[in-house]
Amino acid sequence: MKDFIGTPGTFTGLFLRISQFLFAAASIASMATAAGFANYTAFCYLIASMGLQVIWCLGLSCLDAYALTKKAVLRNPILISLFVVGDWVTATLSLAAASAAAGITVLYDRDLGYCKMMDCRKFQISISFAFISWLLIEISSLLMFWLLAMG
Amino acid sequence: MKDFIGTPGTFTGLFLRISQFLFAAASIASMATAAGFANYTAFCYLIASMGLQVIWCLGLSCLDAYALTKKAVLRNPILISLFVVGDWVTATLSLAAASAAAGITVLYDRDLGYCKMMDCRKFQISISFAFISWLLIEISSLLMFWLLAMG
Repeated sequence: MKDFIGTPGTFTGLFLRISQFLFAAASIASMATAAGFANYTAFCYLIASMGLQVIWCLGLSCLDAYALTKKAVLRNPILISLFVVGDWVTATLSLAAASAAAGITVLYDRDLGYCKMMDCRKFQISISFAFISWLLIEISSLLMFWLLAMG
Repeated sequence: MKDFIGTPGTFTGLFLRISQFLFAAASIASMATAAGFANYTAFCYLIASMGLQVIWCLGLSCLDAYALTKKAVLRNPILISLFVVGDWVTATLSLAAASAAAGITVLYDRDLGYCKMMDCRKFQISISFAFISWLLIEISSLLMFWLLAMG
């Protein structure tokens, strides 16, 4: 199993996981401080989905950091299979949650014009962070899948 | 490059493409016949995204059918790379569109209770078809990526 950018147990892998964690946490922070978010199922689902991503990426960051300090090898097929499934599920849920929340924000902003009455700015910031976070975990997901397929 | 279920130019590949085409077309038909869908950006985006999927899957179905009748080989790396990119883009746009439309339907149905006044049934049927269509193209996308990575 060859080593390339983003492989678990490397500095780029750790950097990717920490970035995913930070953007997901920023998305939660922005949404949780927006007034009235709890009235919308999609916004609550975004927080739940980003919460899952925070837990997953924090766990993998710790594993990467451990592997880097102890020089342990994280590239056996069973472990990579687990990363593939976890990354794929997390990436899919993140994209679905970010899109659902974006759908509602576009409805309020463009279709109904309610954003003049309510503060949509925090929703938009949170959704932007969620999309960046999804993009980063999608990169990880594709890298893991490629690693697994290469065998 | 090994041959397995869903490979381009096989009967299972053709079946998968025709299923994707049919579910995407059903999603468009259901949404286009729902009253007032054009007032919502997310519903128009769902139609556009499913339209792209219809064109893509129809094209690939024709290519698969041609390969089957002429016994041509569709498994060279450049062609597979093109399928990987096309499938990934189409699958991502489909999931985003289906989730955005689902977010609005959940908002109207559960959060605001507007579905008593307007007919949400057709929106829900269209979104269900869109999710099935996404699931099928996601399977194709992962298969193509696996084929490409195996080399």
